[in-house]
Amino acid sequence: MEYKKTIGVLGGMGPAATADFLGKLVKFAQAEKDQDHPRVVIDCNAKIPDRIVSILDNGPDPLSTMLRSVKYLEIAPVDYIVIPCVTAHYFHSQLQANASVPILHIVRETVSFLTDRYPHVKKVGTIATLGTIKSGLISDICDAAGINCIVPDDVLQASAVAEAIHQIKMSGLCPTAKHLVHIAAESLIAKGAQAIIAGCTEVPLVLSDGDLSVPVLDPSAILAQQALRMAL
Amino acid sequence: MEYKKTIGVLGGMGPAATADFLGKLVKFAQAEKDQDHPRVVIDCNAKIPDRIVSILDNGPDPLSTMLRSVKYLEIAPVDYIVIPCVTAHYFHSQLQANASVPILHIVRETVSFLTDRYPHVKKVGTIATLGTIKSGLISDICDAAGINCIVPDDVLQASAVAEAIHQIKMSGLCPTAKHLVHIAAESLIAKGAQAIIAGCTEVPLVLSDGDLSVPVLDPSAILAQQALRMAL
Repeated sequence: MEYKKTIGVLGGMGPAATADFLGKLVKFAQAEKDQDHPRVVIDCNAKIPDRIVSILDNGPDPLSTMLRSVKYLEIAPVDYIVIPCVTAHYFHSQLQANASVPILHIVRETVSFLTDRYPHVKKVGTIATLGTIKSGLISDICDAAGINCIVPDDVLQASAVAEAIHQIKMSGLCPTAKHLVHIAAESLIAKGAQAIIAGCTEVPLVLSDGDLSVPVLDPSAILAQQALRMAL
Repeated sequence: MEYKKTIGVLGGMGPAATADFLGKLVKFAQAEKDQDHPRVVIDCNAKIPDRIVSILDNGPDPLSTMLRSVKYLEIAPVDYIVIPCVTAHYFHSQLQANASVPILHIVRETVSFLTDRYPHVKKVGTIATLGTIKSGLISDICDAAGINCIVPDDVLQASAVAEAIHQIKMSGLCPTAKHLVHIAAESLIAKGAQAIIAGCTEVPLVLSDGDLSVPVLDPSAILAQQALRMAL
């Protein structure tokens, strides 16, 4: 097995999720020696302005910085680009419109995986940033696939999900963040979720498939697998 | 704490060591939000020809491919470059001669750390590729610092060290690789090594400080810490 294409990663949103994504690309690759692996070019640009603040509070626009990274990746040259950050896909169509290579869409890949692998699922719980939730980034694509997407109530969203994502961004894996994410996931299962989407790339660092009574989908892992398939 | 410089990583030698290095940069950074982290640009170029085969058997020269990656990183622009692969430093002076930014030297950083932190150490054991050993990459720098560098005998080098590194490159962490590396390390301690240098960036994936009766130095971690200090 040899991966011949070059994968571009628009990263840094956040850095821990990017490191986790690169680890997945390496782990999932079927390789017997270094040279079998794909070339992967990563702009782990932590300086991209906060996406959530931009979406919710009209903060500094991250688009121009993201676009500069896309242009830099194109020089490598990369064959396509992936973004291991769900919230950043709010800007996907604007990035794609200005890119000369395809930019995979982490949510489309995830929902496509969900409908293929778990066709019985009609109600899915999502653990994501408020920016992702308010922008309908996951729910719109679920709706189009005939899947009802539910999210934690406002109190749990703020006190458990947002707090856990903040802690992971600050210090990586931590027991408190894991506990908070699990509380949020259990609340969604209690409301009838037949699967959970770890809908922020920080979440799979503390929530894995097998942890809950329903399947857990890791968009970052699904994106890595798809990027590798395309690299063959 | 805010890291303002951009770190360039000439990676892919091997990919697992590069992913491990990025994880260390993220973990060691003192950051409260994404934007506090440094921008890190990584060319994880697994297609660079095998360094060991080039050094030992006059195989295809990796230098031109490495230089292309250096030039690409300079475009980012990066403020300096690190290479999370010990053996690749065989080409350090040629890369530095053609680069417009500083390229840190993983072995110099490691030996400098060793003499600062453990001034009593006069005999150090090194677990590294045959390319690193034969080229004197670590032993020359140790000699200059008044430290005697010892390595496993030929049989252990081939059957334990080279085999373990190959397994890690193939499949990441694995119990057999860990066992083999530990056998090699114990043989060096039996010969009087007062510290062990995990002298190939794949080795720290299966050998950590605290695992042995003497300190274990991880050049990849030492390089990450130095890169972060320089990024402030």
